[in-house]
Amino acid sequence: MIHTMSLMHDDLPCMDNDALRRGKPTNHRVFGEETAVLAGDALLSFAFEHVALATRGASPENVVRVLGELAKAIGAEGLVAGQVVDICSEGMAEVGLEHLEFIHHHKTAALLEGSVVLGAILGGGDEEEVGKLRKFAKCIGLLFQVVDDILDLTKSSAELGKTAGKDLVADKTTYPKLLGIEKSRELAEELNREAQEQLSQFHPHKAAPLIALANYIAYRDN
Amino acid sequence: MIHTMSLMHDDLPCMDNDALRRGKPTNHRVFGEETAVLAGDALLSFAFEHVALATRGASPENVVRVLGELAKAIGAEGLVAGQVVDICSEGMAEVGLEHLEFIHHHKTAALLEGSVVLGAILGGGDEEEVGKLRKFAKCIGLLFQVVDDILDLTKSSAELGKTAGKDLVADKTTYPKLLGIEKSRELAEELNREAQEQLSQFHPHKAAPLIALANYIAYRDN
Repeated sequence: MIHTMSLMHDDLPCMDNDALRRGKPTNHRVFGEETAVLAGDALLSFAFEHVALATRGASPENVVRVLGELAKAIGAEGLVAGQVVDICSEGMAEVGLEHLEFIHHHKTAALLEGSVVLGAILGGGDEEEVGKLRKFAKCIGLLFQVVDDILDLTKSSAELGKTAGKDLVADKTTYPKLLGIEKSRELAEELNREAQEQLSQFHPHKAAPLIALANYIAYRDN
Repeated sequence: MIHTMSLMHDDLPCMDNDALRRGKPTNHRVFGEETAVLAGDALLSFAFEHVALATRGASPENVVRVLGELAKAIGAEGLVAGQVVDICSEGMAEVGLEHLEFIHHHKTAALLEGSVVLGAILGGGDEEEVGKLRKFAKCIGLLFQVVDDILDLTKSSAELGKTAGKDLVADKTTYPKLLGIEKSRELAEELNREAQEQLSQFHPHKAAPLIALANYIAYRDN
Protein backbone atom coordinates (compact mmCIF):
# COMPACT_ATOMS: atom_id res chain seq x y z
CA MET A 1 0.00 0.00 0.00
CA ILE A 2 2.70 2.46 1.04
CA HIS A 3 4.85 1.52 -1.94
CA THR A 4 1.95 2.05 -4.34
CA MET A 5 0.87 5.30 -2.76
CA SER A 6 4.39 6.74 -2.82
CA LEU A 7 4.64 5.96 -6.52
CA MET A 8 1.30 7.64 -7.07
CA HIS A 9 2.42 10.62 -5.01
CA ASP A 10 5.53 11.12 -7.14
CA ASP A 11 3.25 11.70 -10.11
CA LEU A 12 1.15 14.31 -8.32
CA PRO A 13 1.15 17.51 -10.36
CA CYS A 14 2.14 20.59 -8.40
CA MET A 15 -0.95 21.82 -6.55
CA ASP A 16 -0.98 24.89 -4.33
CA ASN A 17 -3.18 25.35 -1.28
CA ASP A 18 -5.40 27.87 -3.09
CA ALA A 19 -6.27 25.23 -5.67
CA LEU A 20 -7.17 22.84 -2.89
CA ARG A 21 -9.35 25.45 -1.17
CA ARG A 22 -11.27 26.05 -4.39
CA GLY A 23 -12.32 22.38 -4.35
CA LYS A 24 -10.20 19.29 -4.79
CA PRO A 25 -9.80 17.91 -8.31
CA THR A 26 -10.99 14.33 -8.68
CA ASN A 27 -8.69 11.32 -8.64
CA HIS A 28 -8.76 10.79 -12.44
CA ARG A 29 -7.79 14.45 -13.10
CA VAL A 30 -4.77 14.24 -10.82
CA PHE A 31 -3.53 10.68 -11.40
CA GLY A 32 -5.06 9.79 -14.79
CA GLU A 33 -7.95 7.48 -15.62
CA GLU A 34 -5.97 4.22 -15.46
CA THR A 35 -4.80 4.85 -11.91
CA ALA A 36 -8.23 6.12 -10.83
CA VAL A 37 -9.90 2.93 -12.07
CA LEU A 38 -7.29 0.85 -10.23
CA ALA A 39 -7.77 2.90 -7.05
CA GLY A 40 -11.47 2.07 -7.30
CA ASP A 41 -10.70 -1.64 -7.64
CA ALA A 42 -8.31 -1.50 -4.67
CA LEU A 43 -10.83 0.31 -2.45
CA LEU A 44 -13.62 -2.06 -3.50
CA SER A 45 -11.48 -5.06 -2.51
CA PHE A 46 -10.43 -3.31 0.68
CA ALA A 47 -14.08 -2.98 1.75
CA PHE A 48 -14.37 -6.79 1.78
CA GLU A 49 -10.95 -7.24 3.39
CA HIS A 50 -11.89 -4.77 6.12
CA VAL A 51 -15.17 -6.52 6.91
CA ALA A 52 -13.39 -9.91 6.95
CA LEU A 53 -10.68 -8.66 9.34
CA ALA A 54 -12.56 -6.17 11.53
CA THR A 55 -15.41 -8.47 12.57
CA ARG A 56 -13.41 -11.03 14.54
CA GLY A 57 -15.73 -10.78 17.56
CA ALA A 58 -18.86 -11.52 15.50
CA SER A 59 -20.16 -14.96 14.57
CA PRO A 60 -18.42 -16.16 11.37
CA GLU A 61 -21.82 -17.24 9.92
CA ASN A 62 -23.00 -13.63 10.21
CA VAL A 63 -19.75 -12.27 8.75
CA VAL A 64 -20.12 -14.51 5.67
CA ARG A 65 -23.73 -13.33 5.37
CA VAL A 66 -22.81 -9.63 5.51
CA LEU A 67 -20.00 -10.11 2.99
CA GLY A 68 -22.58 -11.61 0.61
CA GLU A 69 -24.99 -8.72 1.34
CA LEU A 70 -22.27 -6.14 0.70
CA ALA A 71 -21.29 -7.76 -2.61
CA LYS A 72 -24.92 -7.85 -3.76
CA ALA A 73 -25.46 -4.19 -2.81
CA ILE A 74 -22.52 -3.16 -5.03
CA GLY A 75 -22.74 -5.55 -7.98
CA ALA A 76 -24.89 -6.22 -11.03
CA GLU A 77 -28.08 -6.31 -8.93
CA GLY A 78 -27.15 -3.22 -6.89
CA LEU A 79 -25.22 0.01 -7.37
CA VAL A 80 -23.73 -1.04 -10.73
CA ALA A 81 -27.18 -1.85 -12.16
CA GLY A 82 -28.41 1.63 -11.18
CA GLN A 83 -25.36 3.32 -12.66
CA VAL A 84 -25.55 1.39 -15.95
CA VAL A 85 -29.28 2.11 -16.39
CA ASP A 86 -28.58 5.77 -15.55
CA ILE A 87 -25.88 5.95 -18.24
CA CYS A 88 -28.13 4.22 -20.79
CA SER A 89 -30.98 6.64 -19.96
CA GLU A 90 -29.04 9.78 -20.87
CA GLY A 91 -30.81 11.64 -23.64
CA MET A 92 -33.79 9.26 -23.48
CA ALA A 93 -37.01 11.14 -24.34
CA GLU A 94 -39.33 9.40 -21.88
CA VAL A 95 -38.16 8.30 -18.45
CA GLY A 96 -41.13 7.23 -16.31
CA LEU A 97 -41.52 7.03 -12.54
CA GLU A 98 -40.75 3.29 -12.38
CA HIS A 99 -37.57 3.76 -14.44
CA LEU A 100 -36.46 6.66 -12.21
CA GLU A 101 -37.14 4.62 -9.05
CA PHE A 102 -35.13 1.70 -10.45
CA ILE A 103 -32.13 4.01 -10.85
CA HIS A 104 -32.41 5.56 -7.38
CA HIS A 105 -33.21 2.29 -5.62
CA HIS A 106 -30.01 0.82 -7.05
CA LYS A 107 -27.67 3.81 -7.35
CA THR A 108 -28.41 5.44 -4.01
CA ALA A 109 -30.57 3.20 -1.81
CA ALA A 110 -28.73 -0.13 -2.26
CA LEU A 111 -25.56 0.95 -0.43
CA LEU A 112 -27.58 2.77 2.24
CA GLU A 113 -29.58 -0.44 2.67
CA GLY A 114 -26.34 -2.39 2.87
CA SER A 115 -24.87 -0.16 5.56
CA VAL A 116 -28.00 -0.49 7.73
CA VAL A 117 -28.56 -4.22 7.14
CA LEU A 118 -24.89 -5.13 7.74
CA GLY A 119 -25.10 -3.58 11.20
CA ALA A 120 -28.43 -5.30 11.89
CA ILE A 121 -27.04 -8.74 10.99
CA LEU A 122 -23.73 -8.30 12.85
CA GLY A 123 -25.65 -7.00 15.87
CA GLY A 124 -27.58 -10.28 15.96
CA GLY A 125 -30.95 -9.02 14.68
CA ASP A 126 -33.56 -11.70 13.86
CA GLU A 127 -35.19 -12.01 10.40
CA GLU A 128 -38.06 -9.67 11.29
CA GLU A 129 -35.76 -7.00 12.72
CA VAL A 130 -33.40 -7.18 9.73
CA GLY A 131 -36.44 -6.95 7.41
CA LYS A 132 -37.76 -3.83 9.13
CA LEU A 133 -34.36 -2.13 9.07
CA ARG A 134 -33.98 -3.06 5.40
CA LYS A 135 -37.28 -1.36 4.59
CA PHE A 136 -36.28 1.66 6.72
CA ALA A 137 -33.08 2.00 4.66
CA LYS A 138 -34.87 1.64 1.31
CA CYS A 139 -37.27 4.44 2.32
CA ILE A 140 -34.56 6.89 3.43
CA GLY A 141 -32.50 6.08 0.33
CA LEU A 142 -35.37 7.11 -1.94
CA LEU A 143 -36.23 10.01 0.40
CA PHE A 144 -32.69 11.32 -0.01
CA GLN A 145 -33.13 11.51 -3.78
CA VAL A 146 -36.63 13.06 -3.73
CA VAL A 147 -35.38 15.79 -1.35
CA ASP A 148 -32.28 16.32 -3.50
CA ASP A 149 -34.49 16.95 -6.56
CA ILE A 150 -36.71 19.38 -4.60
CA LEU A 151 -33.71 21.32 -3.23
CA ASP A 152 -32.13 21.63 -6.70
CA LEU A 153 -35.33 23.33 -7.89
CA THR A 154 -36.21 25.50 -4.91
CA LYS A 155 -32.91 26.68 -3.40
CA SER A 156 -30.27 29.13 -4.61
CA SER A 157 -26.70 28.05 -5.34
CA ALA A 158 -25.55 30.00 -2.25
CA GLU A 159 -28.00 28.11 -0.03
CA LEU A 160 -27.03 24.72 -1.50
CA GLY A 161 -23.28 25.31 -1.52
CA LYS A 162 -23.34 23.93 -5.08
CA THR A 163 -24.89 24.97 -8.40
CA ALA A 164 -28.70 25.03 -8.13
CA GLY A 165 -31.08 24.35 -11.03
CA LYS A 166 -28.65 21.88 -12.64
CA ASP A 167 -31.41 19.32 -13.26
CA LEU A 168 -33.56 21.84 -15.14
CA VAL A 169 -30.62 22.96 -17.31
CA ALA A 170 -29.70 19.33 -18.08
CA ASP A 171 -33.38 18.48 -18.68
CA LYS A 172 -32.92 15.65 -16.18
CA THR A 173 -35.86 13.51 -15.16
CA THR A 174 -36.64 14.34 -11.53
CA TYR A 175 -39.51 13.79 -9.10
CA PRO A 176 -40.71 17.43 -9.40
CA LYS A 177 -40.66 17.09 -13.20
CA LEU A 178 -42.73 13.89 -13.11
CA LEU A 179 -45.03 14.65 -10.13
CA GLY A 180 -44.91 18.42 -9.64
CA ILE A 181 -43.39 20.07 -6.58
CA GLU A 182 -46.36 19.59 -4.23
CA LYS A 183 -46.76 15.86 -4.91
CA SER A 184 -42.99 15.48 -4.54
CA ARG A 185 -43.17 17.08 -1.08
CA GLU A 186 -46.06 14.73 -0.17
CA LEU A 187 -44.01 11.76 -1.37
CA ALA A 188 -41.09 12.88 0.81
CA GLU A 189 -43.38 13.14 3.86
CA GLU A 190 -44.80 9.69 3.15
CA LEU A 191 -41.36 8.10 2.75
CA ASN A 192 -40.17 9.65 6.03
CA ARG A 193 -43.33 8.41 7.83
CA GLU A 194 -42.96 4.91 6.33
CA ALA A 195 -39.28 4.82 7.30
CA GLN A 196 -39.99 5.77 10.91
CA GLU A 197 -42.89 3.29 11.18
CA GLN A 198 -40.37 0.48 10.71
CA LEU A 199 -38.62 1.56 13.89
CA SER A 200 -41.68 1.52 16.18
CA GLN A 201 -40.93 -1.90 17.70
CA PHE A 202 -37.33 -1.11 18.58
CA HIS A 203 -36.30 0.43 21.92
CA PRO A 204 -36.68 4.24 21.56
CA HIS A 205 -33.12 4.90 22.77
CA LYS A 206 -31.69 2.53 20.18
CA ALA A 207 -33.93 3.83 17.38
CA ALA A 208 -33.23 7.52 18.17
CA PRO A 209 -30.14 7.93 15.91
CA LEU A 210 -31.98 6.36 12.96
CA ILE A 211 -35.04 8.62 13.52
CA ALA A 212 -32.71 11.63 13.65
CA LEU A 213 -31.06 10.47 10.39
CA ALA A 214 -34.42 10.17 8.60
CA ASN A 215 -35.48 13.64 9.80
CA TYR A 216 -32.13 15.10 8.82
CA ILE A 217 -32.50 13.72 5.29
CA ALA A 218 -36.11 14.92 5.06
CA TYR A 219 -35.64 18.45 6.43
CA ARG A 220 -32.11 19.38 5.33
CA ASP A 221 -31.62 22.72 3.52
CA ASN A 222 -28.64 21.75 1.42
CA MET B 1 -28.51 -8.74 -13.90
CA ILE B 2 -30.78 -9.65 -16.80
CA HIS B 3 -32.21 -6.13 -16.91
CA THR B 4 -28.75 -4.59 -17.01
CA MET B 5 -27.43 -7.03 -19.59
CA SER B 6 -30.41 -6.50 -21.89
CA LEU B 7 -29.86 -2.75 -21.78
CA MET B 8 -26.19 -3.32 -22.58
CA HIS B 9 -27.12 -5.65 -25.41
CA ASP B 10 -29.37 -3.04 -27.02
CA ASP B 11 -26.30 -0.85 -27.42
CA LEU B 12 -24.25 -3.57 -29.09
CA PRO B 13 -22.99 -2.30 -32.47
CA CYS B 14 -23.76 -4.60 -35.39
CA MET B 15 -21.05 -7.28 -35.48
CA ASP B 16 -20.94 -10.06 -38.06
CA ASN B 17 -19.56 -13.56 -37.45
CA ASP B 18 -16.44 -12.85 -39.52
CA ALA B 19 -15.53 -10.01 -37.18
CA LEU B 20 -15.96 -12.36 -34.22
CA ARG B 21 -13.75 -15.02 -35.84
CA ARG B 22 -10.99 -12.47 -36.36
CA GLY B 23 -10.86 -11.94 -32.56
CA LYS B 24 -13.45 -10.42 -30.27
CA PRO B 25 -13.20 -6.69 -29.58
CA THR B 26 -12.75 -5.86 -25.89
CA ASN B 27 -15.56 -4.77 -23.61
CA HIS B 28 -14.62 -1.05 -23.64
CA ARG B 29 -14.56 -0.98 -27.47
CA VAL B 30 -18.06 -2.44 -27.74
CA PHE B 31 -19.85 -0.89 -24.74
CA GLY B 32 -17.71 2.18 -24.00
CA GLU B 33 -15.28 2.83 -21.15
CA GLU B 34 -17.89 3.79 -18.53
CA THR B 35 -19.78 0.52 -18.91
CA ALA B 36 -16.56 -1.51 -19.08
CA VAL B 37 -15.36 -0.03 -15.77
CA LEU B 38 -18.74 -0.79 -14.19
CA ALA B 39 -18.67 -4.35 -15.55
CA GLY B 40 -15.30 -4.73 -13.83
CA ASP B 41 -16.75 -3.48 -10.54
CA ALA B 42 -19.73 -5.82 -10.86
CA LEU B 43 -17.54 -8.85 -11.59
CA LEU B 44 -15.18 -7.97 -8.76
CA SER B 45 -18.10 -7.82 -6.30
CA PHE B 46 -19.54 -11.00 -7.78
CA ALA B 47 -16.31 -12.88 -6.98
CA PHE B 48 -16.88 -12.18 -3.26
CA GLU B 49 -20.62 -12.87 -3.50
CA HIS B 50 -19.92 -16.19 -5.20
CA VAL B 51 -17.43 -17.30 -2.53
CA ALA B 52 -19.84 -16.23 0.24
CA LEU B 53 -22.75 -18.17 -1.31
CA ALA B 54 -21.02 -21.20 -2.87
CA THR B 55 -19.11 -22.31 0.24
CA ARG B 56 -22.05 -23.23 2.46
CA GLY B 57 -20.62 -26.67 3.28
CA ALA B 58 -17.29 -25.24 4.50
CA SER B 59 -16.56 -23.90 7.99
CA PRO B 60 -17.63 -20.21 8.18
CA GLU B 61 -14.29 -19.35 9.88
CA ASN B 62 -12.46 -20.64 6.81
CA VAL B 63 -14.84 -18.83 4.44
CA VAL B 64 -14.16 -15.50 6.19
CA ARG B 65 -10.44 -16.24 5.98
CA VAL B 66 -10.54 -16.97 2.23
CA LEU B 67 -12.62 -13.85 1.57
CA GLY B 68 -9.90 -11.82 3.32
CA GLU B 69 -7.19 -13.64 1.29
CA LEU B 70 -9.03 -13.00 -1.96
CA ALA B 71 -9.43 -9.29 -1.19
CA LYS B 72 -5.74 -8.96 -0.32
CA ALA B 73 -4.69 -10.74 -3.54
CA ILE B 74 -6.66 -8.22 -5.60
CA GLY B 75 -6.19 -4.95 -3.71
CA ALA B 76 -3.50 -2.37 -2.98
CA GLU B 77 -1.07 -5.05 -1.75
CA GLY B 78 -1.81 -7.43 -4.63
CA LEU B 79 -2.81 -7.22 -8.28
CA VAL B 80 -3.56 -3.49 -8.17
CA ALA B 81 -0.11 -2.70 -6.72
CA GLY B 82 1.53 -4.63 -9.58
CA GLN B 83 -0.59 -2.92 -12.20
CA VAL B 84 0.05 0.58 -10.80
CA VAL B 85 3.82 0.03 -10.59
CA ASP B 86 3.72 -1.37 -14.14
CA ILE B 87 1.93 1.75 -15.42
CA CYS B 88 4.36 4.03 -13.56
CA SER B 89 7.33 2.12 -15.02
CA GLU B 90 6.40 2.75 -18.66
CA GLY B 91 9.17 4.62 -20.40
CA MET B 92 11.45 4.31 -17.33
CA ALA B 93 15.10 4.01 -18.43
CA GLU B 94 16.28 1.54 -15.78
CA VAL B 95 14.04 -1.25 -14.52
CA GLY B 96 16.05 -3.70 -12.42
CA LEU B 97 15.36 -7.33 -11.55
CA GLU B 98 13.81 -6.53 -8.16
CA HIS B 99 11.46 -3.98 -9.74
CA LEU B 100 10.45 -6.48 -12.45
CA GLU B 101 9.82 -9.19 -9.85
CA PHE B 102 7.66 -6.81 -7.79
CA ILE B 103 5.45 -6.25 -10.84
CA HIS B 104 5.14 -9.95 -11.73
CA HIS B 105 4.72 -11.13 -8.14
CA HIS B 106 1.78 -8.75 -7.77
CA LYS B 107 0.29 -8.58 -11.27
CA THR B 108 0.46 -12.27 -12.14
CA ALA B 109 1.44 -14.36 -9.12
CA ALA B 110 -0.90 -12.83 -6.49
CA LEU B 111 -4.12 -14.12 -8.07
CA LEU B 112 -2.52 -17.49 -8.87
CA GLU B 113 -1.45 -17.66 -5.22
CA GLY B 114 -4.97 -16.73 -4.17
CA SER B 115 -6.57 -19.45 -6.26
CA VAL B 116 -4.27 -22.12 -4.81
CA VAL B 117 -4.40 -20.90 -1.19
CA LEU B 118 -8.20 -20.48 -1.19
CA GLY B 119 -8.58 -24.14 -2.09
CA ALA B 120 -5.99 -25.17 0.51
CA ILE B 121 -7.81 -23.29 3.31
CA LEU B 122 -11.31 -24.43 2.31
CA GLY B 123 -10.03 -28.01 2.02
CA GLY B 124 -8.94 -27.83 5.66
CA GLY B 125 -5.15 -27.60 5.16
CA ASP B 126 -3.06 -26.79 8.25
CA GLU B 127 -0.68 -23.80 8.45
CA GLU B 128 2.30 -25.76 7.10
CA GLU B 129 0.32 -27.20 4.17
CA VAL B 130 -1.15 -23.80 3.29
CA GLY B 131 2.36 -22.30 3.50
CA LYS B 132 3.82 -24.89 1.12
CA LEU B 133 1.00 -24.45 -1.38
CA ARG B 134 1.41 -20.67 -1.16
CA LYS B 135 5.10 -20.98 -2.04
CA PHE B 136 4.25 -23.42 -4.87
CA ALA B 137 1.84 -20.83 -6.32
CA LYS B 138 4.33 -17.95 -6.04
CA CYS B 139 6.92 -20.03 -7.94
CA ILE B 140 4.61 -21.03 -10.79
CA GLY B 141 3.31 -17.43 -11.02
CA LEU B 142 6.82 -16.12 -11.62
CA LEU B 143 7.63 -19.14 -13.80
CA PHE B 144 4.68 -18.26 -16.03
CA GLN B 145 6.14 -14.80 -16.67
CA VAL B 146 9.73 -15.93 -17.23
CA VAL B 147 8.52 -18.50 -19.80
CA ASP B 148 6.28 -15.89 -21.43
CA ASP B 149 9.29 -13.59 -21.93
CA ILE B 150 11.39 -16.45 -23.39
CA LEU B 151 8.61 -17.51 -25.81
CA ASP B 152 8.10 -13.93 -27.02
CA LEU B 153 11.78 -13.82 -28.01
CA THR B 154 12.29 -17.34 -29.41
CA LYS B 155 9.04 -18.30 -31.18
CA SER B 156 7.39 -17.07 -34.36
CA SER B 157 3.98 -15.39 -34.35
CA ALA B 158 2.51 -18.48 -36.05
CA GLU B 159 3.84 -20.73 -33.28
CA LEU B 160 2.59 -18.42 -30.52
CA GLY B 161 -0.81 -17.69 -32.07
CA LYS B 162 -0.13 -14.04 -31.24
CA THR B 163 2.42 -11.44 -32.32
CA ALA B 164 5.96 -12.52 -31.38
CA GLY B 165 8.80 -10.13 -30.56
CA LYS B 166 6.40 -7.57 -29.06
CA ASP B 167 8.63 -7.03 -26.01
CA LEU B 168 11.68 -6.23 -28.15
CA VAL B 169 9.71 -3.77 -30.29
CA ALA B 170 8.28 -2.08 -27.19
CA ASP B 171 11.75 -2.13 -25.52
CA LYS B 172 10.04 -3.81 -22.54
CA THR B 173 12.11 -4.97 -19.60
CA THR B 174 12.07 -8.77 -19.63
CA TYR B 175 14.02 -11.60 -18.01
CA PRO B 176 16.01 -12.34 -21.22
CA LYS B 177 16.87 -8.63 -21.49
CA LEU B 178 18.13 -8.50 -17.88
CA LEU B 179 19.67 -12.00 -17.58
CA GLY B 180 20.22 -13.23 -21.13
CA ILE B 181 18.34 -16.16 -22.65
CA GLU B 182 20.41 -18.97 -21.05
CA LYS B 183 20.18 -17.62 -17.49
CA SER B 184 16.45 -17.07 -18.05
CA ARG B 185 16.06 -20.74 -18.99
CA GLU B 186 18.02 -21.74 -15.88
CA LEU B 187 15.79 -19.52 -13.74
CA ALA B 188 12.71 -21.19 -15.24
CA GLU B 189 14.11 -24.67 -14.43
CA GLU B 190 14.91 -23.57 -10.88
CA LEU B 191 11.45 -22.10 -10.32
CA ASN B 192 9.79 -25.29 -11.60
CA ARG B 193 12.02 -27.43 -9.33
CA GLU B 194 11.33 -25.19 -6.31
CA ALA B 195 7.59 -25.29 -7.02
CA GLN B 196 7.50 -29.09 -7.20
CA GLU B 197 9.63 -29.46 -4.04
CA GLN B 198 6.78 -27.86 -2.08
CA LEU B 199 4.53 -30.74 -3.08
CA SER B 200 6.79 -33.58 -1.92
CA GLN B 201 4.96 -34.16 1.39
CA PHE B 202 1.50 -34.37 -0.17
CA HIS B 203 -0.02 -37.64 -1.38
CA PRO B 204 1.25 -38.19 -4.98
CA HIS B 205 -2.28 -38.70 -6.32
CA LYS B 206 -3.45 -35.42 -4.84
CA ALA B 207 -0.32 -33.52 -5.93
CA ALA B 208 -0.40 -34.89 -9.51
CA PRO B 209 -2.63 -32.15 -11.04
CA LEU B 210 -0.45 -29.42 -9.52
CA ILE B 211 2.75 -31.08 -10.80
CA ALA B 212 1.17 -31.33 -14.25
CA LEU B 213 0.23 -27.63 -14.07
CA ALA B 214 3.81 -26.59 -13.18
CA ASN B 215 5.22 -28.70 -16.03
CA TYR B 216 2.63 -27.34 -18.46
CA ILE B 217 3.61 -23.76 -17.57
CA ALA B 218 7.34 -24.59 -17.83
CA TYR B 219 7.27 -26.53 -21.12
CA ARG B 220 4.44 -24.91 -23.08
CA ASP B 221 5.16 -23.76 -26.66
CA ASN B 222 2.69 -20.90 -26.83
